[in-house]
Amino acid sequence: MKLVQCVPNFSEGRRPEVIAAILAAITAVPLVRLLDHKPDADHNRVVVTMVGEPAAVLEAAFRATAKARDLIDMEQHSGEHPRMGAADVIPFVPLGTTTMDDCVALAEALGERIARELNIPVYLYERAARRPERQNLAEVRRGEYEGLKLEIVKPERQPDFGPARLHPTAGATVVGARPPLVAFNVNLDTADVKVAKAIAKTVRESSGGLPAVKGLGLMLEATGQAQISMNMVDYNVTGLHVVFEAIKKEAAKHGVKVANSEVIGLLPAKALLDVARHYLALTDFSPEQVLELKLATPDES
Amino acid sequence: MKLVQCVPNFSEGRRPEVIAAILAAITAVPLVRLLDHKPDADHNRVVVTMVGEPAAVLEAAFRATAKARDLIDMEQHSGEHPRMGAADVIPFVPLGTTTMDDCVALAEALGERIARELNIPVYLYERAARRPERQNLAEVRRGEYEGLKLEIVKPERQPDFGPARLHPTAGATVVGARPPLVAFNVNLDTADVKVAKAIAKTVRESSGGLPAVKGLGLMLEATGQAQISMNMVDYNVTGLHVVFEAIKKEAAKHGVKVANSEVIGLLPAKALLDVARHYLALTDFSPEQVLELKLATPDES
Repeated sequence: MKLVQCVPNFSEGRRPEVIAAILAAITAVPLVRLLDHKPDADHNRVVVTMVGEPAAVLEAAFRATAKARDLIDMEQHSGEHPRMGAADVIPFVPLGTTTMDDCVALAEALGERIARELNIPVYLYERAARRPERQNLAEVRRGEYEGLKLEIVKPERQPDFGPARLHPTAGATVVGARPPLVAFNVNLDTADVKVAKAIAKTVRESSGGLPAVKGLGLMLEATGQAQISMNMVDYNVTGLHVVFEAIKKEAAKHGVKVANSEVIGLLPAKALLDVARHYLALTDFSPEQVLELKLATPDES
Repeated sequence: MKLVQCVPNFSEGRRPEVIAAILAAITAVPLVRLLDHKPDADHNRVVVTMVGEPAAVLEAAFRATAKARDLIDMEQHSGEHPRMGAADVIPFVPLGTTTMDDCVALAEALGERIARELNIPVYLYERAARRPERQNLAEVRRGEYEGLKLEIVKPERQPDFGPARLHPTAGATVVGARPPLVAFNVNLDTADVKVAKAIAKTVRESSGGLPAVKGLGLMLEATGQAQISMNMVDYNVTGLHVVFEAIKKEAAKHGVKVANSEVIGLLPAKALLDVARHYLALTDFSPEQVLELKLATPDES
């Protein structure tokens, strides 16, 4: 059986009873595991992580979207994080033997259903995007709920599914497919944030560094360490060991050493198995050899 | 919920219908996954790997032992591998958050039940051993089925559970608890097997090397590489990266490089996560952060 991860973001981070109702809609679906949820009151937003059999995860994402539509009114919503809908962004992420194409198909099926049954306009983004500019979530969400209300009628802002007008309370929803994202930070044995900023510039894709790496230099006041804080947006393109070695090399040029590193939140096993494989020069290795990964694929029966 | 691995060895590697009946006894138990089985006709033996909820795995191991008792006659058995019973050796191995103490308790409960209900003498071995010399499986199995038939009446050979006589067809069974075993080979960039033998001698515990490492040097005829072939009997004591770095260092003394390495068969995720953690200098990392490991722990519900 295949497995998929889904990380929907809902525009509610303050009312626990609303968050609980959305989570209950998810956990009511068999073959879906709710792994995590992170409400943020400032952002007025909750990020939910679920994993399971693809059709079941699609069903759970749909029911959670329906619940969010019923309980969240975007006319009343404020928060620091950019948003344009009650169910704001719903990415599917491949796990195990599931492919990115599988996730694109799931995004299309969910988007079509949300538009048809809930009367909410839906945009497809990132790997599921049907227009090149919609690969970029920030571009899809430009103007947020308030701005899109006016702009949605323009040809370039029309949704991929559903009506060219926002739902009166639930706004619009962005559905897509993306690789797993790993939050990976490397701490330097220096309090000089300029070194971290210089290294971040060298390794991040946007300034000509490693593909699929976003990063910035910052200061950890608590430990007095300068940090390169990164989002590894596709570890199949650039692995954690690749960026770690690049940072070690750059740090040496500044006469600085790497102190340690940290992974924030969840990550797929393969992101770290690739690291072990690299350093041990492992050949003929398959993730199927890892006991828990065999277990993560439920029985056919 | 907790998870345990169990790797029973049965004295049948030639009759597929007998192997199928033993496996069916295991798969009939809910909350147990049969992950692997490797029959060997020369050894006339099958090694079975199952994983699941501890009480369920105990039940499956008991039922499989009962089936082996009914279908295997040790009086008729021959094979290259040392053995003394139809269900020959049954180790429990901790996975996830299960402890070695949990596994010792499982071994004791299974051993007591096999003796009481099936009338088979049972020896406790390795971490479950009640006599120091029984920590060593070879010592428990000394003389094999034929030899033990005579010696079982001696005080030092009496079983931990059950009668001081072999079962007339099923012999005796050894039950125990042990850490996961990882078969890890490192290949050298040389055809000189003497170098591999010298390095193996340096790294293995028996000749004063690293604790919990067994190893020997041998020649891979197919690739013309000398190999250090190892059993890592407790990667919590000596990790794969520790022995890998030790071999690299020793190889350099001989003017030789490490070409690559390989893991044979199954291993727990933690054995490789520890490697990644070491090389990335990861701090504050928990295996709970790995998506698939969260999934390997079934829901409470």
